[in-house]
Amino acid sequence: MHKVKVYVTLRESVLDPQGTAVQKSLNSMNYQEVKDVRIGKYMELSIEKSDRDLDEVIRSMCEKLLVNTVIEDYRYEIEEVIAP
Amino acid sequence: MHKVKVYVTLRESVLDPQGTAVQKSLNSMNYQEVKDVRIGKYMELSIEKSDRDLDEVIRSMCEKLLVNTVIEDYRYEIEEVIAP
Repeated sequence: MHKVKVYVTLRESVLDPQGTAVQKSLNSMNYQEVKDVRIGKYMELSIEKSDRDLDEVIRSMCEKLLVNTVIEDYRYEIEEVIAP
Repeated sequence: MHKVKVYVTLRESVLDPQGTAVQKSLNSMNYQEVKDVRIGKYMELSIEKSDRDLDEVIRSMCEKLLVNTVIEDYRYEIEEVIAP
């Protein structure tokens, strides 16, 4: 079994109104040192071993469903989980 | 300037209907090896140097605004950004 952590972020060139709203809230709460906020997604997938190549499976899942590659970038990390 | 990466996840004991929906979609798209999906948030904050302790600032921002500590856990990483 593998635990796969996927991080999805908006591309640099894409506006992030949700992040801007959070930044403004933080600034108004007396955290003026916060100059920028970008909000993304974080996913943890538990994936069982199979015949297919894990990297290929992850990449195709991301590109078909999990990530909107027009406006988002992604990266992922794979951890092996030793079953008890 | 520091770049702070905050990862917010649902607590283990909290149901994640969004994750379950994504898992079912992946399973129906012929990714049967996916056994569990949990969805969280990922935030990148750019924080300017100030007199206050950075860890304390981050923790109080998380607990006051960014994280619902009743149902969510969080962790963060700090990266120093060298201005050009």
